Amino acid sequence: MQPTHTTTPALRVLARDLASLPTGEPATLAGWIHRRRVLASVTFLVLRDRTGLAQVVVKDPATIEQLHGLPEETVVEVTGTVSANDSAPGGAELTAPTIIALTEPALPPPVELWRPTFGAGLPTHLDHAAVTLRHPRHRAAWQLASASMAGFRSALGALDFTEIASPKLVGTATESGANVFTVDYFGETAYLAQSPQLYKQMLVGVFERVFEVGPVFRAEPHDTVRHLAQYTSLDAELGFIRDHRDVLVVLRAAIAGMVESIQRYAAEAAALLGVDLPEVPAEFPVIHFRDALARVGADPDEPDLSPAHERALSEWAKTAYGSDFLAVEGYPMAKRPFYTCPQPGDERWSNSFDLLFRGLELTTGGQRLHRPSDYAAALERTGTDPALLGGYLDAFSHGMPPHGGFAIGLERWVARLTRAENVREVTLFPRDLHRLAP
Amino acid sequence: MQPTHTTTPALRVLARDLASLPTGEPATLAGWIHRRRVLASVTFLVLRDRTGLAQVVVKDPATIEQLHGLPEETVVEVTGTVSANDSAPGGAELTAPTIIALTEPALPPPVELWRPTFGAGLPTHLDHAAVTLRHPRHRAAWQLASASMAGFRSALGALDFTEIASPKLVGTATESGANVFTVDYFGETAYLAQSPQLYKQMLVGVFERVFEVGPVFRAEPHDTVRHLAQYTSLDAELGFIRDHRDVLVVLRAAIAGMVESIQRYAAEAAALLGVDLPEVPAEFPVIHFRDALARVGADPDEPDLSPAHERALSEWAKTAYGSDFLAVEGYPMAKRPFYTCPQPGDERWSNSFDLLFRGLELTTGGQRLHRPSDYAAALERTGTDPALLGGYLDAFSHGMPPHGGFAIGLERWVARLTRAENVREVTLFPRDLHRLAP
Repeated sequence: MQPTHTTTPALRVLARDLASLPTGEPATLAGWIHRRRVLASVTFLVLRDRTGLAQVVVKDPATIEQLHGLPEETVVEVTGTVSANDSAPGGAELTAPTIIALTEPALPPPVELWRPTFGAGLPTHLDHAAVTLRHPRHRAAWQLASASMAGFRSALGALDFTEIASPKLVGTATESGANVFTVDYFGETAYLAQSPQLYKQMLVGVFERVFEVGPVFRAEPHDTVRHLAQYTSLDAELGFIRDHRDVLVVLRAAIAGMVESIQRYAAEAAALLGVDLPEVPAEFPVIHFRDALARVGADPDEPDLSPAHERALSEWAKTAYGSDFLAVEGYPMAKRPFYTCPQPGDERWSNSFDLLFRGLELTTGGQRLHRPSDYAAALERTGTDPALLGGYLDAFSHGMPPHGGFAIGLERWVARLTRAENVREVTLFPRDLHRLAP
Repeated sequence: MQPTHTTTPALRVLARDLASLPTGEPATLAGWIHRRRVLASVTFLVLRDRTGLAQVVVKDPATIEQLHGLPEETVVEVTGTVSANDSAPGGAELTAPTIIALTEPALPPPVELWRPTFGAGLPTHLDHAAVTLRHPRHRAAWQLASASMAGFRSALGALDFTEIASPKLVGTATESGANVFTVDYFGETAYLAQSPQLYKQMLVGVFERVFEVGPVFRAEPHDTVRHLAQYTSLDAELGFIRDHRDVLVVLRAAIAGMVESIQRYAAEAAALLGVDLPEVPAEFPVIHFRDALARVGADPDEPDLSPAHERALSEWAKTAYGSDFLAVEGYPMAKRPFYTCPQPGDERWSNSFDLLFRGLELTTGGQRLHRPSDYAAALERTGTDPALLGGYLDAFSHGMPPHGGFAIGLERWVARLTRAENVREVTLFPRDLHRLAP
């Protein structure tokens, strides 16, 4: 083994901190060679680390020669002299550098990563994600996701929610029979969980308020720009509600937390991508499904909103309430899963909602049934064998409060924020009908 | 639908807040009937909510009669008068109550949940987890887990780590060929990821420092008290290290964060379970594998430490350093996966470690290879087809820094803290050779 590193991490200076050091002092940067710019008498080396870019000015002929053999993406450690320069990123650069390569010279990346826009299509990006995710715009998109997860958790943590970890391997595929992956489970058949729905409900019986951020699995047989075989679901469920409106209050708090967390931890990423962060209103405007149909001029018997309807309703909410969000409540029971609570007084409708965000459904949620007799009736109505739901039904016969919850698709949220046309653009290593690698 | 709830959540008083209300004022509690204690002239109703227990004193004969029909675990809303009483939990109770049942009378639970100790064996608990997890000791164990996850994330977030979400469906099972679950993936074969190892390494190339808290899957064909088919892995990986000792510094910070978070968010749970939280030393003591073998009097050619060795070493660390933790570094290369970095100067040993905590291995970690040529050699040595690792190897040929990381098993950590003999005792809905439900 050759020695690989000469500086303790503590002595390394990050790109963002370079300008805070005194001019004339020595400093060591470490990172990836983002770009080399060779001029007649000087070569600029732009170094990338986790905090951004730093400029290194190389005039020594031997070092310029050395740099010829260190292509972009090679990882190096650079020791030089801090020099103020208003035209350098951050206002300082490193001069008179000594460069040590920390690995072998890199192969040329499939796309030039230093260009401000990503110069290739989605398939190239996805095929080479291990490298192309390094492009600042791809990194930034995931930083929005990462900050969103943190904000979701801290908003719900502040409201006394307990984080749970539910099984992803389940014995029955009853929540929705279609689109499940089957697993060979020690010679028997298991399924990958499509959501933590049944588990988060059971755990309301234990902790009252629970959330989970984790993978869910859908064997989507269609290629669409909105669907993935695995995505990250931000799930919450809470007890002792009056109805789905109390769920909307918590959903609002969660989304506000996600937006605040982006402002706090990923503001640069948001700026780089030109994200126009939504203002989260003190209360989401709400329209009943029946009135929503009427507003868009649809047939009153339509069981669902079309994408065009969702866009029109979002535009209306923006005009009428100045809101990027609109909750549509009362979706027809016929289109909702068996655990959905009907609307008191008119059981055609449900105590559930979709939250539209800038023209697209972001979240589905609502109140669930909680009385054992209501479950018995719902299972009979939907033709579901109660034996398949044994453990789940136990929770209800042993006492469950009125409760409800919601789930936000993380990648869909980030795609909306960044106006990505395809959710794959903002997913680290997407899985779909055609893609299982890298 | 009958009306289910009469009080807005905002007006509900939590058990923990009852004593802070003025005596003589009305208040409404909501929760589960934890216990009814029927005396000659008075019935005590102990109500359980997410914050603890509250006592309600019932003297009105009609209400006592009503309570006869509301067995333990029935969910109720209770409105009464706040009354100071030093012998009530928290120093206050509710008197002259009106009780509204929020669901149907509960079936008797499989175990009396109000008894301080859980009065049944593990199989009963696991078969009825949806109900028996409500026992305060089971709830408390998971609260330790929940607080630990939060502490892990906040410690690493403070160190500039980016949270990632890696694919759980993978195309090749090369990290370790054995014990993988196979999935029918649109007619092809996929595998459930045994760890995010390869992805967290690739993403070091993007973010330098990454962590993930998520499910990992092992098709463990043996029934043991330590292994599960799914568990929660707390994973971290970081670039620009000198060697595995820099990884240990971050591991120490992560564990310190987990302990602090328990103290902050789950102190009552820890007290209930009699958890003796470890002091996390400023630096973990370290012993080389070779010296560890000598210290326990084992054959110097032993390739691994036995459970008895681990216990003896932990005892020694406690005596010699006053530490509940001991890092054993230098494990034989022969027992480590292909990406392990050998010890410079003596390639029998590795730059990797196990962290022992109170007699048991808690964590494995270490430095990884980062040069493409080292990967080529390692794959040849271990007979692994590089074509199976295409995307992963791309990261290295396009520039990766020296890096390393670790993974902590959440359930194993909590089992150690609570001295649970079986990791299933502290897992919400464990999955193993025989168990796929509830």
